Amino acid sequence: MGETDTTTRDVTLFRALFRPRSIALIGASADPAKDNSRAQRLLAREGYSGRVIPVNPSRAEIMGVATAPDIRGVDGDVDHAIIMVPGAAVADAIAGCIEKRVPVATIFSAGFAETGDAGRARQEALVAQARAGGIRLIGPNCLGIISAADRVPITLNAALEAEPIMPGRLALVSQSGSMMGALFSRAAARGIGFSRMVSVGNECDLGVGELAELLVEDAATDAVLLFLETFRDAPRLAAAARRAHVLGKPIIAYKLGRSEIGRTLALSHTGAMLGGDELAAAFFRAHGILRVETLEGLFETARLVMGHKPPQGRRFAALTATGGGAAAVVDRLGLAGIELAGPPAALREAMAAQKIAVPDAPLIDLPMGSSGPGPFSTVLRGMAEAGHADALLAVLGSSARSNPTRALAHITPLQPCALPIAVFCAPQADEALALFEQHGIAAFRTPESAADALQAYLTWRAPAAPVAARAPSVPPGARLNEAEACALFETMGIPGPGARTVQRGADAAGVAGPAAVKLLSADILHKTDAGMVKLDVTDIPAAVDALLARAREHFPAARVDGVLVAPMHRGLIELILGFRRDPEVGPVVMLGIGGVMAEIRRSIAVRLAPVDAAEAAVMITELPELRILTGYRGLPRGDVDALARAVADFSALALAQDVAEAEINPLLVKHEGQGVVALDGLLVRS
Amino acid sequence: MGETDTTTRDVTLFRALFRPRSIALIGASADPAKDNSRAQRLLAREGYSGRVIPVNPSRAEIMGVATAPDIRGVDGDVDHAIIMVPGAAVADAIAGCIEKRVPVATIFSAGFAETGDAGRARQEALVAQARAGGIRLIGPNCLGIISAADRVPITLNAALEAEPIMPGRLALVSQSGSMMGALFSRAAARGIGFSRMVSVGNECDLGVGELAELLVEDAATDAVLLFLETFRDAPRLAAAARRAHVLGKPIIAYKLGRSEIGRTLALSHTGAMLGGDELAAAFFRAHGILRVETLEGLFETARLVMGHKPPQGRRFAALTATGGGAAAVVDRLGLAGIELAGPPAALREAMAAQKIAVPDAPLIDLPMGSSGPGPFSTVLRGMAEAGHADALLAVLGSSARSNPTRALAHITPLQPCALPIAVFCAPQADEALALFEQHGIAAFRTPESAADALQAYLTWRAPAAPVAARAPSVPPGARLNEAEACALFETMGIPGPGARTVQRGADAAGVAGPAAVKLLSADILHKTDAGMVKLDVTDIPAAVDALLARAREHFPAARVDGVLVAPMHRGLIELILGFRRDPEVGPVVMLGIGGVMAEIRRSIAVRLAPVDAAEAAVMITELPELRILTGYRGLPRGDVDALARAVADFSALALAQDVAEAEINPLLVKHEGQGVVALDGLLVRS
Repeated sequence: MGETDTTTRDVTLFRALFRPRSIALIGASADPAKDNSRAQRLLAREGYSGRVIPVNPSRAEIMGVATAPDIRGVDGDVDHAIIMVPGAAVADAIAGCIEKRVPVATIFSAGFAETGDAGRARQEALVAQARAGGIRLIGPNCLGIISAADRVPITLNAALEAEPIMPGRLALVSQSGSMMGALFSRAAARGIGFSRMVSVGNECDLGVGELAELLVEDAATDAVLLFLETFRDAPRLAAAARRAHVLGKPIIAYKLGRSEIGRTLALSHTGAMLGGDELAAAFFRAHGILRVETLEGLFETARLVMGHKPPQGRRFAALTATGGGAAAVVDRLGLAGIELAGPPAALREAMAAQKIAVPDAPLIDLPMGSSGPGPFSTVLRGMAEAGHADALLAVLGSSARSNPTRALAHITPLQPCALPIAVFCAPQADEALALFEQHGIAAFRTPESAADALQAYLTWRAPAAPVAARAPSVPPGARLNEAEACALFETMGIPGPGARTVQRGADAAGVAGPAAVKLLSADILHKTDAGMVKLDVTDIPAAVDALLARAREHFPAARVDGVLVAPMHRGLIELILGFRRDPEVGPVVMLGIGGVMAEIRRSIAVRLAPVDAAEAAVMITELPELRILTGYRGLPRGDVDALARAVADFSALALAQDVAEAEINPLLVKHEGQGVVALDGLLVRS
Repeated sequence: MGETDTTTRDVTLFRALFRPRSIALIGASADPAKDNSRAQRLLAREGYSGRVIPVNPSRAEIMGVATAPDIRGVDGDVDHAIIMVPGAAVADAIAGCIEKRVPVATIFSAGFAETGDAGRARQEALVAQARAGGIRLIGPNCLGIISAADRVPITLNAALEAEPIMPGRLALVSQSGSMMGALFSRAAARGIGFSRMVSVGNECDLGVGELAELLVEDAATDAVLLFLETFRDAPRLAAAARRAHVLGKPIIAYKLGRSEIGRTLALSHTGAMLGGDELAAAFFRAHGILRVETLEGLFETARLVMGHKPPQGRRFAALTATGGGAAAVVDRLGLAGIELAGPPAALREAMAAQKIAVPDAPLIDLPMGSSGPGPFSTVLRGMAEAGHADALLAVLGSSARSNPTRALAHITPLQPCALPIAVFCAPQADEALALFEQHGIAAFRTPESAADALQAYLTWRAPAAPVAARAPSVPPGARLNEAEACALFETMGIPGPGARTVQRGADAAGVAGPAAVKLLSADILHKTDAGMVKLDVTDIPAAVDALLARAREHFPAARVDGVLVAPMHRGLIELILGFRRDPEVGPVVMLGIGGVMAEIRRSIAVRLAPVDAAEAAVMITELPELRILTGYRGLPRGDVDALARAVADFSALALAQDVAEAEINPLLVKHEGQGVVALDGLLVRS
């Protein structure tokens, strides 16, 4: 089945999670007012055909089913244990499950890592116990699993009590328990069902990544949706995304931006400039995960992208029966830099031959007609075949409300279509939305979610191919001084300033100026502020001696390795190129504009490292300021090719395992053909 | 009734528009399949009690009502004419209405300005005819009026055919006909009705502004919503907004960003840097109009803000039964810089006294409880009374779906509340949303519209008070040269460079250097590029003569007024300060960062002019780069007070009627206490 073939272990785990033949309810209650009674009630309601074993030492039966006093004493196999006992009793319940060789337990009980350090310790003990005993855990502090494709609710979610379970083809993994219920009900109202839903709670063992790996292999699942607050197992999620791409099943994520990843107090500018969301964006991009920004866009987008590959370009074309409604979508996409492609001449001519006037304007405004598919469908098909766009937007007016069947008839002739088609209904049109869903057409309730889905699709890329990069050979030592760091970067292909190190002024007697003269010491940071850098120096020996004297006076304790003397370099712009290992998403490379202004505007491009030069070139286009290097307003062009190569070469630090962090600051970009120069740098070991 | 008392004329116009006692249907059709038949059918359906007069020369009756062959021959008064004849026949219909002294006609017919220049000419002729004849017009090319409060549909909107008219307290004026129907149906699905809805079409006579003026006076209307594509009568809309503020009726706008206002090919940087949306934002801010970004936010926001004044601060506090649901709202507000205010110690102590633990965290997460209002309500009330926030967000979980009545019971004890409360229901909760609306509570369907509404409220300001500014005395002449412009700006309070004009090198013999030396000529633009500026000059006489010689050689045709010699000024940052008259929103003042980089990042703050120094200070905070002037990273502070005064003084150009455009570029900001200097400037007459 491909690169990561499903193993027997995975099949067993999948079955225990989503198709268990027997379920033990540890802490089951006979009191229908108690939450602990709900799991059994829901299993009964859904006609669960496996064996249910309520575990309760004080009753002989619950809901007419014989109880077991302890999981240890149950006859026969138990595939899945639901643990609903108070937090303090969870460890014993797990011990019982281990003795009974239950493969999976879902722990609803709270009182673990979500409560602070003591709870975190209890949770870690639980994980150690489970690892040693060979049981896998969901939770704790979760709302469980709804395996809708097999009608197996393993949950005590109150939201389900008044709610039929509507099976469908989407899987959901949610770090928020309540939002699992919220998304379930919102999708159901649109006729969109789920195959499996998992609330992962504290994710002490089975996490989002591993569950996504299992779910992309699930025959009942066509797409995997993620509601994320943070990343806890990024490498496995990355593996799931690569596998999803092979299988043609999109992974779509809604991620809250409040994550605190990557906000460590770093020594360098790099760290201070990297916020959580840039890292998340880099992660999603690198691994081909679609990202949406609206809540309902999470399930609405699935229908748009299922069955499609990442697009070649990022242009969309739009046909509308209502100018205002289309503009509401197009405007939002325009703000995101997504381009509306007007009809090419050939399309307009082809339509004219069919007596349909298509004006030479970006947006095609056409009434839907009062019967049958007609011109609206004809033009839409022409747009789908014209090759000028990567996705289509069709906006329907009042007929989507007054005559849903006719509205549907305008779109169905397009199926199957090589391009994704997003249908936005301007009026309230519940019936039309349901009809479209039934017919496999992606329809959107709000202009905001329609724009969101199109943006997610049009910025979607295949998972990045492994970059062929060589691990740099990093000399030993905890922290390299700037000369050593720049020397290392030179071996990686990034030219240094051509500095020589001198120990006294007389050593520089023969050097031609003007030069940059700088104290060499790993102990003195912020050398410019400390007066330890002199630029445009012509009397170099005097400057060297003055600097050494000043260092002795002001920093008597600092180890001084000498003085760097380098030729002055002139270029077009100074950048910061940074590398670090993020605890959540792994190695990242960052390109940013130098100087205080850029820091204020947060002009940076971030990628998982390593990247190749092509991807580095895309990073360059993401920094608006770098337009000055590409012929903006007749300004001289900079060497963006050399810059892209430098970013790619530098990002190979990801392969040097003991490098924690590195930075070139400033990286000077010279005129076209003249390359770049790493004027200064640093490197920190892990 | 206040500053702009409703006149008899307005009362007459209002009645003719929204409560006509008789309506003539010019071009009425007896064929129910035709659009022209719909207006009469809808009037009949709604039980319109006034007189309906179908005008049709070829039939004696339509739907059992006697027709008139021509409007001219109708007996008795006609309050309102609906014109549905083909475009070419409209002029004659209007002529008939004028003869018959009909006060208002709504023209559905298309074929006017929306079709191009010829149609525009036809429309202008129509307006001239109407002005001369004393009739007011709605349209052409519109979908008419739905005066729901009086159940008078003056429309042939197909959307209404299958739709009951639900009266309510919101008025809508829409520049998109189809979106009137879309908003009507979307609001109705939420139990939200309208008092009056007007589709203004081409707005040839009665425009958004004048209609808003009428509607804010309407006793049936509590808030006025605008769906805008452009501004056609900004001054009247401004007047309506001021009056709305006096009456305590909010005006809320959704505006498409595609407007082409303000994109004139201006001579200066100012013009090139001003896009349509910055002008729109300045207009809404100046006049106290709330702006929303989501479509459904338009009607959802009304309930949140009705009965409230613009807030003092811009902090909100949040209470939630679902962490994920609240984060979805809070995150979006955080991106917009809207601050979440955590509970103050006094509130936590007061709650602790009632045995409710409120942690010291920004977001209060509290279960809703299974019965009665309980702690959730108690904490919410405590938050409303704590004085630490300007608005409240309450996020409800699954009970909003499973038990809407109980969910409502958690919020109703808060009423009436001095603060606006936005309720977001995380699950699908149609019933709860309807219940909340019935009880006058602002509830939101999506986290996006909840955030949108809170942002609109928290950035809402009262209409700007008139600024006490004096009109500058501008010397005659078409275009001032830079010396004359800077001299004028000096009289307005903005220091100039202290330049003197010399005619030859010898005139500058005694001037101390270093100096800036610049050719003075209104005929040579881009003087730096042309080599007509020399900086840091020490031999001033030689530089003056060299510049004059170079000008004679390269620009023999240019009129040269001499050479400017000014001391070199050192400062912290160079800005652009611009003024122009926008054809749509009127005089505006713009503050931007100088240089190519700033142009790329579009760092500008825009206001309607004039502004006072307090508002100019707010503009300064809107430019991220100017943080370097306020102690950022220990950098030297700049004279932001002088900068604010300069912006305010410069904006008084709005009062000099013949000034079309002016610019100071660069405006140098010096160290704190040292002021600003207008290093260069220009001024263009209208």
